[in-house]
Amino acid sequence: MSELRHDPLSRRWVIIATERSRRPTEFIVNGDARTDGAHVCPFCPGNERFTPPEIAAVRTDGSAPNGPGWQSRVFANKYPALAIEGEPDRRAVGIFDRQRGVGAHEILVEAPEHGLHMADMEPVQLERVLGLYQERLRDLHRDPRFKYVLIFKNHGPAAGASLAHPHSQIIATPVTPRAIASELESARQHYYVKTRCLYCDILNQELEAGVRVVSADEHFAVLAPYASRFPFETMIIPRRHRHAFASESPAAIAALARTLKDIMARLKSVLRDPPFNFVVHTAPNVAADYRRRDYWGTIEVDFHWHMELLPRLTQVAGFEWGSGLFINPTAPEDAAAFLRDAAV
Amino acid sequence: MSELRHDPLSRRWVIIATERSRRPTEFIVNGDARTDGAHVCPFCPGNERFTPPEIAAVRTDGSAPNGPGWQSRVFANKYPALAIEGEPDRRAVGIFDRQRGVGAHEILVEAPEHGLHMADMEPVQLERVLGLYQERLRDLHRDPRFKYVLIFKNHGPAAGASLAHPHSQIIATPVTPRAIASELESARQHYYVKTRCLYCDILNQELEAGVRVVSADEHFAVLAPYASRFPFETMIIPRRHRHAFASESPAAIAALARTLKDIMARLKSVLRDPPFNFVVHTAPNVAADYRRRDYWGTIEVDFHWHMELLPRLTQVAGFEWGSGLFINPTAPEDAAAFLRDAAV
Repeated sequence: MSELRHDPLSRRWVIIATERSRRPTEFIVNGDARTDGAHVCPFCPGNERFTPPEIAAVRTDGSAPNGPGWQSRVFANKYPALAIEGEPDRRAVGIFDRQRGVGAHEILVEAPEHGLHMADMEPVQLERVLGLYQERLRDLHRDPRFKYVLIFKNHGPAAGASLAHPHSQIIATPVTPRAIASELESARQHYYVKTRCLYCDILNQELEAGVRVVSADEHFAVLAPYASRFPFETMIIPRRHRHAFASESPAAIAALARTLKDIMARLKSVLRDPPFNFVVHTAPNVAADYRRRDYWGTIEVDFHWHMELLPRLTQVAGFEWGSGLFINPTAPEDAAAFLRDAAV
Repeated sequence: MSELRHDPLSRRWVIIATERSRRPTEFIVNGDARTDGAHVCPFCPGNERFTPPEIAAVRTDGSAPNGPGWQSRVFANKYPALAIEGEPDRRAVGIFDRQRGVGAHEILVEAPEHGLHMADMEPVQLERVLGLYQERLRDLHRDPRFKYVLIFKNHGPAAGASLAHPHSQIIATPVTPRAIASELESARQHYYVKTRCLYCDILNQELEAGVRVVSADEHFAVLAPYASRFPFETMIIPRRHRHAFASESPAAIAALARTLKDIMARLKSVLRDPPFNFVVHTAPNVAADYRRRDYWGTIEVDFHWHMELLPRLTQVAGFEWGSGLFINPTAPEDAAAFLRDAAV
């Protein structure tokens, strides 16, 4: 079983895969063996036997689980970073902290078609994917061991995707990830002073200024963040205050599907299918004990869910890792203008 | 001039290069134009005219500046992320924060020989490099605009090095980088409770346990950190408490040169010349106003300088960027064992 270890200096949790520890030769000879060079794609219809059993799926033809006929399906990762059984059993190791690698690690195959880009999916297909995100969030939030459920997607080998078939990942963790904790804390402090949501304030300022707005309809805005770390970074944010992605209505999810398809098409057009990551930042699990230990605010009013889209066009080097500062060679105002003017 | 922008959500400063903003085609067509494909290496002896004027150098033959004859030399980066002139002029932009991109960005060419690996440098050559690090730190710390001076090295294109000639970079920033601020804060809080240095406590525990020790002599220890983010990550730490790299004695610098050469040789042997970053974490500039605004401790007792060595063997993907959590597929105990047993 893997282990979560806490670094008392950076205050960062790291998942150490102690069980199938990789030896030096594995980094040298062939890197990650699970690359797309394999002849059979385990995510393609008809190859369901190569994946663990289905946890959830959209099957409009009423077909049986674990065979073809699905539009989108979820199963446990065959190589999970965290395992579902047991208690975290957090304890001190002298000056350090550890807990067992308890959590969930799931794969969501977004569509039957191998190599289909999100920009080219039908809006209804993206709705199914987003609906499954909601379903998995609600289900995993029933488990009080999981403080946070992270939903993300890697597209392209340079962004860490080891298989080309379109898929997302869902990881439930027994800790509140530091990036989320930092946003929660900032939003809580802002609310304490202003009794307004920090995200709502940013959204209003940005919609008024306009220069960093890529698109906006009545449901969602797409912004190039003022302090973007990466060139052409964008954020999708609901215009109405909502703390939890899982609580969005079907109408909002349909609007989000249109927005997501649109920004994906703009990125693909302007940057010729760049590698990217996206990440959903939603409220932590209220069923976990986060209120007592990690968070003292009122999550419903002071957090605002959103998605981060991170094209991976630049190398992150010693400066970034050593300092936590980033150098972004493209001004967000320019990125927003290019994306606004994209032919889609 | 570039601009520093603050993200109120993640509390991260980002350097936005607004002046020579990169357009989408520059990412698509040829990536970074300053690659090693150039026929003339601007860092090789005889090509000094291609670099800005020398700021410092080691010239044992008494040769004149800005020509050949040097063993190691420092000059301003031709493409600086931050510019030396002016005041930061920090101010609000509505809800955001900005300041002008004031700072220093220097290149330190480590040796005349193109392509020479640090593992293959003579110890005396590494002493010269480390001595120049100290000299530049002392000089830049005279400028109260610079809160922090970051020294780092990128080796290999996958680690962000755009030129193969061995070189380090020195960046002085008008903000305390978040990664450093977090360590300062952790160390300060530990000292407040224990009246002991957190780094000394970790060092003592690790030397006793032994399993994560790569090497140790009377001056320095090389450890695989308990919660390493990256496979084969190591930390070089002085065994005697010292807060500032620049205050180390010539004898300690000579010992550090031997230690650095040794760990570089071990990494090169075990992992066949992996791409890597290293970063010096030293105390912030006491001449800046860091005490008043960013730091309330007593830096001499509660911080302990060290170096981080980060081999870049894995892709950092959506999970890491989205959460601040890391998945490390090699246990630090295994990494330390491989590096201890390396043939050097």
